[in-house]
Amino acid sequence: MIAISYSSSANLGPGYDILSMGHDAFYDEVEVLEDHSNEIKISGDGIPLDYKKNTAGLSASMILNDYGIKTGIKINIKKGIPAGLGLGSSGASAAAAVRAINKLFNLGMSHDEMVHYSMHGEIAACGSAHPDNVSSGIYGGITLVQSKNPVKIKKLKINLNFSILLVIPEFFMENKTMYARSLVPSKITMDEHIESTQRLSSLISGLITGDRDLVSYGMNDNIVERARIRMFPYYYDLKRRVIENNAISACISGAGPTVLILYDDKSDYNGILRSVDDVMRSYNIKYILKKSRIMEAYND
Amino acid sequence: MIAISYSSSANLGPGYDILSMGHDAFYDEVEVLEDHSNEIKISGDGIPLDYKKNTAGLSASMILNDYGIKTGIKINIKKGIPAGLGLGSSGASAAAAVRAINKLFNLGMSHDEMVHYSMHGEIAACGSAHPDNVSSGIYGGITLVQSKNPVKIKKLKINLNFSILLVIPEFFMENKTMYARSLVPSKITMDEHIESTQRLSSLISGLITGDRDLVSYGMNDNIVERARIRMFPYYYDLKRRVIENNAISACISGAGPTVLILYDDKSDYNGILRSVDDVMRSYNIKYILKKSRIMEAYND
Repeated sequence: MIAISYSSSANLGPGYDILSMGHDAFYDEVEVLEDHSNEIKISGDGIPLDYKKNTAGLSASMILNDYGIKTGIKINIKKGIPAGLGLGSSGASAAAAVRAINKLFNLGMSHDEMVHYSMHGEIAACGSAHPDNVSSGIYGGITLVQSKNPVKIKKLKINLNFSILLVIPEFFMENKTMYARSLVPSKITMDEHIESTQRLSSLISGLITGDRDLVSYGMNDNIVERARIRMFPYYYDLKRRVIENNAISACISGAGPTVLILYDDKSDYNGILRSVDDVMRSYNIKYILKKSRIMEAYND
Repeated sequence: MIAISYSSSANLGPGYDILSMGHDAFYDEVEVLEDHSNEIKISGDGIPLDYKKNTAGLSASMILNDYGIKTGIKINIKKGIPAGLGLGSSGASAAAAVRAINKLFNLGMSHDEMVHYSMHGEIAACGSAHPDNVSSGIYGGITLVQSKNPVKIKKLKINLNFSILLVIPEFFMENKTMYARSLVPSKITMDEHIESTQRLSSLISGLITGDRDLVSYGMNDNIVERARIRMFPYYYDLKRRVIENNAISACISGAGPTVLILYDDKSDYNGILRSVDDVMRSYNIKYILKKSRIMEAYND
């Protein structure tokens, strides 16, 4: 049984650990087969082959255990999503594996149950079970984590028309997500909280009602992005410049270093491209660009 | 020139200092007339007559000053909204006065400008310029404070059908709003922040898309209501009981002590009434009930 899951951008500015958007920039393809060895065997290029250290493997082992499935499985993972760039790569392998196992064994899982198992796979990648990327990896579209325990996800109905440009710096940081999470402050002031809720409320209202200005205003974060800025010194310059070219907004994709730019037909697309190039050159950082669209839904 | 402004409930659970809803339970009526004394004269029953201590007077004096209006004015205030009960009474007098002055002198203020002046009137009542109640007092409906400085308000498009029941305890606390604000923690943990953003996002999505379950889930607050619970010991019991009777949800109205209950045709209205009575009797607190509807919009 084969399933795929697409890349995604978590947080979207003020939605730390609650918002994520799936996009069709990249995808992982995962094949799951029954195997009579009673083991979980992982195959694939450039990924951990010990199932306990692999997000797909860890999710799979939890499902087999919880459902009392005694047979072993083979999981073959074709990574299409580059890892360590804030594109939800680890979560996508888990989500695709969970979806494939659900179909293979006819488990009839709800979407939230699939998010639950996929999320626990994330522990293999970064030590914590965060549900944001895997939510859009299961539901597609833009998802809101209402609750993590128990998992309760709401897919938002989006009425804003936009395209996506991903600016993907070509650098790799060891244990990046773990480091990025360590920079998040454990306490914030009430004023920071209120500013953040103003932005988040604006972003969500704007996405649902198709209000471009609200999205522009809302997609700004004064807590997590600010705390992590040392990891992405180019970010504020890049954001300022693309907004001067009438991009809708920009944010750090997940734990970075990728920057997600939203634009539409009011934007000066060539101006955005020039700005990106100017800024990334000035920081002496190589990058690739990837145009994409929101990944609306999975068919299964 | 006469203008009115209705009662309102700020916060709506997780929207501290950003959300407010106008309702037609009560209203203040403010008449503003030119006066050749060059003073601001206040008249009305049971209100401060020194214009610097009166929300309407303070707003008025700022406008006259900023617009260079040299004439004096008489402000006659008919209070319909009981004060000190979390119903936006102080803000409504200011909002009505600002609206009347705007018309009287043909100032052509934007809604946000009227919120700005009304908000500064609130300093007379509680020492701080908070924009939530006066936003719904100027715009009507449910308003979102995007930013306080400069004032930027968004009126949300609501697609949920509901009725309002206000449970108004008959007790009065001196300087209640100031005390209530002093209980709000100056710092919160990141986990509290995330839970709060989950609730708030759910509430706003639910109101806009008409998703009753999302509103039920979202209208819960783990920060401000929790910190103030000593002021309203009946609140959690009351909330639990009305939800058992299928109310949509309930929250503290502004800084309390009033409780706002949302219900609809799925609710057991008589069961709600019985529950309220049981709980308030068990706490030995007298109360009045007021049914109302959302106040959709002002015509001016």
